[in-house]
Amino acid sequence: MAAVPDEPGGPTLARVAAEAGVSVSTVSKVLHGRSDVASRTRARVQRLLERHGYAARGRAAPTGLAAGGLVDFVVGELDGPWAAELVRGAEEAVHAAGLGLVVSAAHGRGRTGREWLAALAARPTRGAVLVVPELSEAERDGLRELGLPFAQIAPAEEPPAGVPWVGAANWSGGRAATRHLLGLGHRRIAVIGGPPRRLASRARVDGYRSALEEAELAFDPELVRYGDFSNEPAHRHALELLGRPDRPTAVFAGSDQQALSTYRAADRLGLRVPGDVSVVGFDDLPFTDWVTPRLTTVRTPLAEMAALATGMVLQLIAGERPASTRIEVAGELVVRDSTAPPV
Amino acid sequence: MAAVPDEPGGPTLARVAAEAGVSVSTVSKVLHGRSDVASRTRARVQRLLERHGYAARGRAAPTGLAAGGLVDFVVGELDGPWAAELVRGAEEAVHAAGLGLVVSAAHGRGRTGREWLAALAARPTRGAVLVVPELSEAERDGLRELGLPFAQIAPAEEPPAGVPWVGAANWSGGRAATRHLLGLGHRRIAVIGGPPRRLASRARVDGYRSALEEAELAFDPELVRYGDFSNEPAHRHALELLGRPDRPTAVFAGSDQQALSTYRAADRLGLRVPGDVSVVGFDDLPFTDWVTPRLTTVRTPLAEMAALATGMVLQLIAGERPASTRIEVAGELVVRDSTAPPV
Repeated sequence: MAAVPDEPGGPTLARVAAEAGVSVSTVSKVLHGRSDVASRTRARVQRLLERHGYAARGRAAPTGLAAGGLVDFVVGELDGPWAAELVRGAEEAVHAAGLGLVVSAAHGRGRTGREWLAALAARPTRGAVLVVPELSEAERDGLRELGLPFAQIAPAEEPPAGVPWVGAANWSGGRAATRHLLGLGHRRIAVIGGPPRRLASRARVDGYRSALEEAELAFDPELVRYGDFSNEPAHRHALELLGRPDRPTAVFAGSDQQALSTYRAADRLGLRVPGDVSVVGFDDLPFTDWVTPRLTTVRTPLAEMAALATGMVLQLIAGERPASTRIEVAGELVVRDSTAPPV
Repeated sequence: MAAVPDEPGGPTLARVAAEAGVSVSTVSKVLHGRSDVASRTRARVQRLLERHGYAARGRAAPTGLAAGGLVDFVVGELDGPWAAELVRGAEEAVHAAGLGLVVSAAHGRGRTGREWLAALAARPTRGAVLVVPELSEAERDGLRELGLPFAQIAPAEEPPAGVPWVGAANWSGGRAATRHLLGLGHRRIAVIGGPPRRLASRARVDGYRSALEEAELAFDPELVRYGDFSNEPAHRHALELLGRPDRPTAVFAGSDQQALSTYRAADRLGLRVPGDVSVVGFDDLPFTDWVTPRLTTVRTPLAEMAALATGMVLQLIAGERPASTRIEVAGELVVRDSTAPPV
């Protein structure tokens, strides 16, 4: 393997290997105490590892973290549109701390709902970041029993005190989306929200209501529908809302996916977006910039949320107390082509 | 933590815990040789672990794999639209073998391109699955030096003999897309391919050419454009192709993203999809079923590809020889609403 340039912030192992004039695998062997390294080489490598403060390398790493260690990232479903961004954010934080991120999916594996907990117990992991919306108290107890610090991302309900978590600023997001539509002149604005039992859905609809109140407009429950963040219920709601004689001139959808279902309903009814109806989504997933018209949406900073939750866990692993343990990250409104003044 | 039901195929640790009447964390402690377990409990748990054949558990696990071990999954970019599906397939295979999947991103980290190799050296991983299209021979040497079995997914070029890899059946896919359009009656079919230096792009265009030849139609190089799987070049090519007086009646795009850029170009030129122009994509990413019109596309079985590559690595780790080490997985054509007979 070619030598890796010795640069600030570069990987310690590669730097040590270059300085010691050995391969990275030799450094790794020394680190893992394997016997197949000459004793003089071993001593040289060990000195260099110490000099480079191997145990505390990485910019974002709290002190006290051993390199090569693991953090688990447990996500409900790996096939949802959010998973990739969340994994990316967690991976960056863990990598910066010199650790590795073990990714596993919690659901869709038959009746053994806590299988992921057994998997965590079976490997020398140091902590866990969980995107399991309905994490139960029994599961949290299981993590405590294993002695693993953990943090939750986007819980369905607010976790009990003492459990660190990171969510999106859903109320602010719902408010920003609605204020944008009000600013364009819309007065009849419908909402197609996510599942009503989820904190995120309720907060977004409350943000919408708050913006209406601020504009001294009445809140019309007829214009508020709940779906489940997916396509079919949203499509049905959009067809019904846009098919009314007094149809809304704008729809605020609880997810980008629901926004695309609204596009489809509009198309079926012969309505143009944004000419006849404006649409705002929520999340800013990559495809929102590829569809026609490009979707105006509220960004959910998924990668940042995952990085923050991971940072909390890294601090807890290191025996530090995170500065804050309940964070809501606000994402800005991204204005594209799906919103315009009403005709 | 509540006891996990003892069911076939369930997690061994949980089963052992239930049978021994102890918690999963106690089983985990015994497994890791920690001292804070009573000796009688330890003995009972150890017997049960042996009886359950702990080292060889898991349906898909080749014999000889220790539970709790790790496999690394290195992917060029975690923010591409393909990453989530690939991670999902690899995670399922590794999990079924009782191991954990460490996910890391190879690119976008400044000049130290081989940082991921140093990270692999720093942890006790057993093998690696790589989605790094331009994996160099030096990097492969680095992996061999670390003694890590590895397999590649979707390499940009065919790797040298002896390197196991899994790709999509791109030639068959290009052929299937083109035959579908020919079957609808199209005779002027354009292609907007990916980067010409990539094996996948060339194979897809060759599949297109093969289908044309079979139909005794001339291959017109004017109708073949190369992009880079992303939006802007595809949009430019589509605008140019669809703006011609002798415009094609159908476009076969090298990626779903490029297909959406073709939608946008059509919209800008006042053309309807599929009324004025049919569009076929490639990959079948989730959003293709959400856009209007729903996209006809060739499925790339990303999760299956990742699972197969991971299976090869698991066999190599276990000292077994995989039955085949170069596999192309064919995905079927998914016909939706973006293709119709020409007018």
